[in-house]
Amino acid sequence: MVNQREKKVLKMTQSPSRTERSINIIEYFQKKGAQVDAWLERLLPAVSEAPSLIHEAMRYSIFAGGKRLRPILAIATGEAFNAEERTLLPAACSLEMIHTYSLIHDDLPAMDNDDLRRGMPTNHVVFGEGMAILAGDALLTQAFRTLADCEGGTPQRKLRVLSEVASAAGTVNSLIGGQVLDLQFEGKSVTGEQLESIHRAKTGALIRCAVRIGAIVGGADEAELRALTVYGEKAGLAFQVADDLLDETATSEELGKTAGKDAASHKATYIALYGIDGAREMADRLYHEAVAALNSIDRETIMLEEIARFIVERKS
Amino acid sequence: MVNQREKKVLKMTQSPSRTERSINIIEYFQKKGAQVDAWLERLLPAVSEAPSLIHEAMRYSIFAGGKRLRPILAIATGEAFNAEERTLLPAACSLEMIHTYSLIHDDLPAMDNDDLRRGMPTNHVVFGEGMAILAGDALLTQAFRTLADCEGGTPQRKLRVLSEVASAAGTVNSLIGGQVLDLQFEGKSVTGEQLESIHRAKTGALIRCAVRIGAIVGGADEAELRALTVYGEKAGLAFQVADDLLDETATSEELGKTAGKDAASHKATYIALYGIDGAREMADRLYHEAVAALNSIDRETIMLEEIARFIVERKS
Repeated sequence: MVNQREKKVLKMTQSPSRTERSINIIEYFQKKGAQVDAWLERLLPAVSEAPSLIHEAMRYSIFAGGKRLRPILAIATGEAFNAEERTLLPAACSLEMIHTYSLIHDDLPAMDNDDLRRGMPTNHVVFGEGMAILAGDALLTQAFRTLADCEGGTPQRKLRVLSEVASAAGTVNSLIGGQVLDLQFEGKSVTGEQLESIHRAKTGALIRCAVRIGAIVGGADEAELRALTVYGEKAGLAFQVADDLLDETATSEELGKTAGKDAASHKATYIALYGIDGAREMADRLYHEAVAALNSIDRETIMLEEIARFIVERKS
Repeated sequence: MVNQREKKVLKMTQSPSRTERSINIIEYFQKKGAQVDAWLERLLPAVSEAPSLIHEAMRYSIFAGGKRLRPILAIATGEAFNAEERTLLPAACSLEMIHTYSLIHDDLPAMDNDDLRRGMPTNHVVFGEGMAILAGDALLTQAFRTLADCEGGTPQRKLRVLSEVASAAGTVNSLIGGQVLDLQFEGKSVTGEQLESIHRAKTGALIRCAVRIGAIVGGADEAELRALTVYGEKAGLAFQVADDLLDETATSEELGKTAGKDAASHKATYIALYGIDGAREMADRLYHEAVAALNSIDRETIMLEEIARFIVERKS
């Protein structure tokens, strides 16, 4: 442990300047984002395949310019453990398919009724409600097919990844459950604890899962997996606090979605609970806790640190 | 081959009378249906788990009195190959989860806008549209989690089953693709070929998949799998023709859903194309083709024959 701490200190004193670091992380997101897009292009059915309209609808939302945060978190974690690209990239892309399906369904008139997403009209505005529901269903289904079919790795590990992803996308403290809570609490006053349980489920579970599946594909041991899970949980919560801050302070143009909507619809936010300064302090604290969780891991985790910083400092 | 044919002939001459057979198949459906229900009870999150409303919505549609045709087809096939119950039953149940999710989403106002299903108000009528969309999403997700987590079998075989199920639930000649075509062709005149491609996807893919995963869990060889696939394809198409006949000739009370709705909404049906007598002949021909496909398999397949007969002779 002493050796690892010494290494960390050494690494920190040798760290590049803040400016260099932020250039690096932007380059990393661009490079890995392009890699994710290339794999998604291959992993989704072509528009030329019948029935083409559903494939067009799936691709419309997948290629609408997302940051690819979830797949990039999985990739950065997997790379720290020298995971094989042909197994890691499909696994990472499955998370983007699931994230995108959840956005398409959340935006529906029966849910959040949003008509702008990532700066473009939402899926149901372009393709109609019925097709948008099916496009979401199809992305969710394709995510699991991708995980079952990917090359490399051991079958045992692939089944474990599948189970982790299905669990994170499920109802108990997970993606769908979070959306249920979100609907149920809309317009009601919530406590800090309730707000955290909503976000731990709605955005936290998939971000945590991204880190975990990167580690599993890479063959991390259980102690490493535990430390990375803490990192993932802190980063996921930090992401949501930063999201609330952006919703309050950025413009719709910067965000690519309707700004100030949460406040206008009286949705529970960290700003409503703690104010802008309180939420900023919380995001900062979570960032430091996320980075501290990486201390026990004897791998190159600088990119995970940088991603945590990006999560709280991003402008969109 | 001669030996197998002789055995078949022997089996046929020793077959019980028609009345005894129909009692047997009803008993088989009751017994296996109860087994499926007991497994579904265990495999779905309890209503006591938070958020309880989504678990209530999932269970409402799962336990609304379906025939369990898909899981029972998987079970009957698996049993012919001595598949282990602890692997076969979860795999079979995953198909019922997927079938039920597709019904919930198909019934939505943005799709077929149905308010009666299996004799009960549809999911969105009871729980609201938003919750019904999420309940469908959750059943689809839980199906894959069930497949990833089930005990017994080899990891390789489980991944293959997962891939088969994800493919059958997907867009290309599969479940979602069929619903897309159904929406696109609604109110338009279709050819027999087009109608067959809709149904091959919308109902056929999952029924074919049921037979295939039963065989895969049981360790069938590739020749057996090919023969069973033909059986599954014929049985799936026969099911749809029989469904059209029921929609035309049965009452809403018998069906548990709105009767005559397909005709009223000018949906493409086999009746519209071939008339009642033509459709009856087609169902009968498909039944015989399904049974003939079983000839090359040196296993006890009498229950699969009986299920094919039940599919074309059922009254609801």
